[in-house]
Amino acid sequence: MKMEEIKKLLPRVIEHRRELHKIPELGLDLPKTIEYVERHLKDLGLSPKRVGKGITCDIGNPPFVAIRADMDALPMEEKNDLPYKSTHPGKMHACGHDAHTAVLLGLAEYFSKNSPQVGVRLIFQAGEEGYFGAVEMIKAGALENVELILGQHVGNQAEAPEGGIITKKGVFMASADAFDVKFKGKGGHGSAPHEARDPIAPAAQFVTSVYSFRSREINQTHPFVTTITKLVSGTTFNVIPDIAEIAGTVRTISEEDRKKAARRLEEMAKGVAEANDIEFEFVYHWMYRTLVNTDWVVDMLVEVVSKMGIPIVQLDTPIMGGEDFSYYLEKVPGVFFFTNTANLEKGIVQPNHSPYFNIDEEKLWVPMAVFVKMVEEYASKK
Amino acid sequence: MKMEEIKKLLPRVIEHRRELHKIPELGLDLPKTIEYVERHLKDLGLSPKRVGKGITCDIGNPPFVAIRADMDALPMEEKNDLPYKSTHPGKMHACGHDAHTAVLLGLAEYFSKNSPQVGVRLIFQAGEEGYFGAVEMIKAGALENVELILGQHVGNQAEAPEGGIITKKGVFMASADAFDVKFKGKGGHGSAPHEARDPIAPAAQFVTSVYSFRSREINQTHPFVTTITKLVSGTTFNVIPDIAEIAGTVRTISEEDRKKAARRLEEMAKGVAEANDIEFEFVYHWMYRTLVNTDWVVDMLVEVVSKMGIPIVQLDTPIMGGEDFSYYLEKVPGVFFFTNTANLEKGIVQPNHSPYFNIDEEKLWVPMAVFVKMVEEYASKK
Amino acid sequence: MKMEEIKKLLPRVIEHRRELHKIPELGLDLPKTIEYVERHLKDLGLSPKRVGKGITCDIGNPPFVAIRADMDALPMEEKNDLPYKSTHPGKMHACGHDAHTAVLLGLAEYFSKNSPQVGVRLIFQAGEEGYFGAVEMIKAGALENVELILGQHVGNQAEAPEGGIITKKGVFMASADAFDVKFKGKGGHGSAPHEARDPIAPAAQFVTSVYSFRSREINQTHPFVTTITKLVSGTTFNVIPDIAEIAGTVRTISEEDRKKAARRLEEMAKGVAEANDIEFEFVYHWMYRTLVNTDWVVDMLVEVVSKMGIPIVQLDTPIMGGEDFSYYLEKVPGVFFFTNTANLEKGIVQPNHSPYFNIDEEKLWVPMAVFVKMVEEYASKK
Amino acid sequence: MKMEEIKKLLPRVIEHRRELHKIPELGLDLPKTIEYVERHLKDLGLSPKRVGKGITCDIGNPPFVAIRADMDALPMEEKNDLPYKSTHPGKMHACGHDAHTAVLLGLAEYFSKNSPQVGVRLIFQAGEEGYFGAVEMIKAGALENVELILGQHVGNQAEAPEGGIITKKGVFMASADAFDVKFKGKGGHGSAPHEARDPIAPAAQFVTSVYSFRSREINQTHPFVTTITKLVSGTTFNVIPDIAEIAGTVRTISEEDRKKAARRLEEMAKGVAEANDIEFEFVYHWMYRTLVNTDWVVDMLVEVVSKMGIPIVQLDTPIMGGEDFSYYLEKVPGVFFFTNTANLEKGIVQPNHSPYFNIDEEKLWVPMAVFVKMVEEYASKK
Repeated sequence: MKMEEIKKLLPRVIEHRRELHKIPELGLDLPKTIEYVERHLKDLGLSPKRVGKGITCDIGNPPFVAIRADMDALPMEEKNDLPYKSTHPGKMHACGHDAHTAVLLGLAEYFSKNSPQVGVRLIFQAGEEGYFGAVEMIKAGALENVELILGQHVGNQAEAPEGGIITKKGVFMASADAFDVKFKGKGGHGSAPHEARDPIAPAAQFVTSVYSFRSREINQTHPFVTTITKLVSGTTFNVIPDIAEIAGTVRTISEEDRKKAARRLEEMAKGVAEANDIEFEFVYHWMYRTLVNTDWVVDMLVEVVSKMGIPIVQLDTPIMGGEDFSYYLEKVPGVFFFTNTANLEKGIVQPNHSPYFNIDEEKLWVPMAVFVKMVEEYASKK
Repeated sequence: MKMEEIKKLLPRVIEHRRELHKIPELGLDLPKTIEYVERHLKDLGLSPKRVGKGITCDIGNPPFVAIRADMDALPMEEKNDLPYKSTHPGKMHACGHDAHTAVLLGLAEYFSKNSPQVGVRLIFQAGEEGYFGAVEMIKAGALENVELILGQHVGNQAEAPEGGIITKKGVFMASADAFDVKFKGKGGHGSAPHEARDPIAPAAQFVTSVYSFRSREINQTHPFVTTITKLVSGTTFNVIPDIAEIAGTVRTISEEDRKKAARRLEEMAKGVAEANDIEFEFVYHWMYRTLVNTDWVVDMLVEVVSKMGIPIVQLDTPIMGGEDFSYYLEKVPGVFFFTNTANLEKGIVQPNHSPYFNIDEEKLWVPMAVFVKMVEEYASKK
Repeated sequence: MKMEEIKKLLPRVIEHRRELHKIPELGLDLPKTIEYVERHLKDLGLSPKRVGKGITCDIGNPPFVAIRADMDALPMEEKNDLPYKSTHPGKMHACGHDAHTAVLLGLAEYFSKNSPQVGVRLIFQAGEEGYFGAVEMIKAGALENVELILGQHVGNQAEAPEGGIITKKGVFMASADAFDVKFKGKGGHGSAPHEARDPIAPAAQFVTSVYSFRSREINQTHPFVTTITKLVSGTTFNVIPDIAEIAGTVRTISEEDRKKAARRLEEMAKGVAEANDIEFEFVYHWMYRTLVNTDWVVDMLVEVVSKMGIPIVQLDTPIMGGEDFSYYLEKVPGVFFFTNTANLEKGIVQPNHSPYFNIDEEKLWVPMAVFVKMVEEYASKK
Repeated sequence: MKMEEIKKLLPRVIEHRRELHKIPELGLDLPKTIEYVERHLKDLGLSPKRVGKGITCDIGNPPFVAIRADMDALPMEEKNDLPYKSTHPGKMHACGHDAHTAVLLGLAEYFSKNSPQVGVRLIFQAGEEGYFGAVEMIKAGALENVELILGQHVGNQAEAPEGGIITKKGVFMASADAFDVKFKGKGGHGSAPHEARDPIAPAAQFVTSVYSFRSREINQTHPFVTTITKLVSGTTFNVIPDIAEIAGTVRTISEEDRKKAARRLEEMAKGVAEANDIEFEFVYHWMYRTLVNTDWVVDMLVEVVSKMGIPIVQLDTPIMGGEDFSYYLEKVPGVFFFTNTANLEKGIVQPNHSPYFNIDEEKLWVPMAVFVKMVEEYASKK
């Protein structure tokens, strides 16, 4: 590995990241992002292919080591005041997928100049934020002739030193489901609640029930998260609204707890509706399964990273975030890891999904170097 | 009074109401509505004047009996499927002010052809829904030379038979204040609540506190309403939001209860914030005072209406809705009444402020006739 | 009426009250109290009769004006430090029935010396606090030959000046029902809630639901009270209990609201139980109906009391306490009133049912004088 | 080890357990239990010593292997219908300490006949259920000349097969603190809540807050329990009580989470009190620290137990129950383990602290055999 070359590529990677940061797109439909990635791959003389809703780009011949980046953003307003701030209202790269894509574009440039000793497939994937983009890619053939898969996530993670790597053998990330509840009452004048059927009071009671459930009915030694992330009802001060809309997430590493949550959340919605003499709708969205790293690939990662003098931490407990990278790992061996891109001195500490989320771009050489070294190591061991 | 003429005017009044229903506007800024009213008054050969944010139109000479209509709509989506449905997204005439305005346009036509024996001033007012439009009008001189003021509200009111009139001596309508609360946490990933500061759980607890307060700390024989009409936080299933926004109303006929509510609601917001280790903002909006009808004018109304064979009901307890008509009544004697525009057979029963609100337009001759007759009666008694 | 004699009797009345205060007894079984009353009536040369669970004592011949006192206490620990403090642990005269009984013993003495011009029947009744003692008395014949019934309640009532009288025409006091809820879970170790079924969390949610119901589903202009007066579950810090027991009351003057409360409270218990995956039991106790004073007797009372120079206040809204005196008033005309026995200077202000409840005994001549005068007035008008 | 002799002792051990089960005593004051243990030790010709609030009994010479049993019961009503049911009202051996004591009496008999190759000290300890009985014993010298300490707990534990052993290296059991909250209002009549200050509504809100805290502010991958085990307020249906009393527990293996809970619970009590305009008292009882097994002793236990053909399970996650055995382990090496005394066929499955708790007594030979074998193994390795 030519570390100097990697570091020389860093400004380009940062530029890519900023360009992408300006144009966040959602879900499986990322026209501007796809266009950007494709154009730059072609400029390098490579041959990107549209696969599913994303792009793959092979360098060398099969079999391949695949390296994956996700490209989609989140439906939220950026609150950072940055020169490269989001230009798409209500959309923001608050989870760092812009950086993932930029790192992969950097790797494309590196490998286009330094042929790897084993085939490398770059996978640019859409729809990680709840859209099963990985499943889409696999169906479209992205894993054909792939022997090993690597992926990473940037984030401001206190678990490792700044610029360090975080991973775990076995279950590394939780299953990540979602649910929607609607309490459907009857709108009316704020001064005559008895003539309306207020949906906000039951919505509030449902919040109470959910946190009571987590604290009472789940084994309290189990990693388990349920969060109500959305409660929206009403628009003004004197109108009782018709409907309260609730959304939330369930994260767990136990299939039993997951099933219990799905069943009990619905019962809670039903019970609260009954207690309030109101209608309800409940939908549980079964989403990403747990992400399970391959033990020997984690061992290889630890060895490689340690030799490079980069700090690496193996967690005792899983991270409760979900990742559709899990679906690649169900098909081929591999590893997923986090890169700590925090910089306390620069005030870069906000968690992923915050409207103030940002990363220390100067650290993006770390995942690049780790990926290159892992490819070399795998090639040498074959 | 020429009842036939009034009934002949009904189709025109209905047409006015529908045209206005299509173009709901909010607050104190009603350009299309003002233009519509002004144009039709001029077409009748009258001389409307821009006064404050509204219009007055004098017919005859001072002193005047004033008749007032409010013209503003509500910030909500109409859910009716009607040929004359709102064409302004997010705005709706869900409180019937379109009908109030239409009735006054009908009166303009009537009086332009049948000169009243006493001067009549038509007051078309903006900003009744929380904007102190009445105060604006009074400041701008709308009550100059006015001896008596009349006003009415349409609604589907079970208290009287369909087409009947509802009023009350003394305190007829409650004071109607509003409040806003913001719980300000720290956004983050739905999977790691301990790294964020969730604002939804405290918002839910605040709802609980408010209804507990109404049930525990207010004299349970007092008419008193507090309603949380808005709770908005979050946008999607995996992002903990920064802020939860709450809005609500307080209606009371006791100045002591009103002050207690203002004080205690703020303490509740503070206490809940502290219990959740989160920031808050609280604003109490002191709004309309209680509406107090003049006893002798109520007596006159009861006599006049009864003679016309229209049912009239005097309530024992006040209506908890607020009205800035109260400010006119603090300056001159007068009466405010409701007209029951429900029609069970036609399925017109939804309460005011419902997204399905509608009225039985065929009943709009009732307030017209009552106003004309009240003007005649007052003139005859002078 | 000989006011001097009444005032001379006051020390005796106070002594009676204190003796009775020491020996509070509950419900329909008041052996010591009955013995005390009977003994003192006999000492006056009167002929008390055991009727139902109480005593009647006729002075003169039929027809009678009946005057009723209730005699039972409450199951609570007295917290006053008084020479005549309750000597019965867990029982207290916290509702002033000791004073009612003492006043009637004073009247017995007065009338035994000053024959009334119309027959007087003193009714000493057990079981007012939820035991339908009045119904018991009526069944046993206590109203035979009775033409008019009078009753009063002491209390520290801000509605009238100290020593004044409070009453109201028509509905004066509310219906007063009770309910019990049990949430039945499964006990266990405090450290393993998922192996138990915690009943406390649902009990807390039920409290929330009840106050939400009162604030959302009842017409907010109606006098209506529901209070949860008891929530008992668990004994120590590390054992999850089996059961949470809840008790409460519903007070209303609308039969419709009453039925709605009975139905909805059960639905709330059911809904909360379901939301918590737990069993429940619910019982609604239909208890005292509204107390309705006879208008002409109220008029007579107002006249009599005013002439005596005692302040009297007629309320606009009912008192939400219940009274089984209502059952007498369903059979014969009469009036029930409150005597304000507060004394701000002496610090006697605690409400009825407080463990610190007390009365200004110096004011007990007031109800005595009012009763005597009412008897005279009624006799004179016959 | 003579397994036959151990099994022959089983009926005696069962008899001891039943005799002790009948006479549950609380805390540090166990006169009947102490008398029973002492008498039977003396009957065996041994020389028990009163040490602190308990007993030690040495067999052989120093240095010693200590084996500890706790002897105290819980303040709850037994709901089992057994011939040897608790005869002390409101007290119950619902945590199996009767069995612990019986097992040690069995060991006393075994070792009195089969001299161990190393000194054995039996420690009979009072006050495990929250009274720091272990600290008391240590202060009184119970660990003098002790090189190794062993302890066990019976329970119906699903983690191991019936009759199997459960343990864990390092942190095996949580810290176990307690807290008390009082909300202090003002009593009054159930019909006039605005004149009283109801303490039940805030108590219910506190329950909500606590479970919200556990679900929002603690890292959701950490083992952490907080349970409200007691909420007591009010006695009857028409009296608003003065005070609501709450008790609960906090279990954690993180000193940071523990401190956060102590701080935040108090803030919650304060915030809820403020939101309800009521007084409060809060006390956090810092109790047992985490129990940390010595790794090499766990290894020895696993080897010994496995050789005996008894199933043994090493947990991944700690048990959230607390144990003052932790204090012995802070002084000398040792191990604490659970014995699964469930018997599904006999319906013996209730968790510890249930009013229906029971054990399969036939399995009490297991801990006896394990203790004997551990003593032998340690002696042989010295």
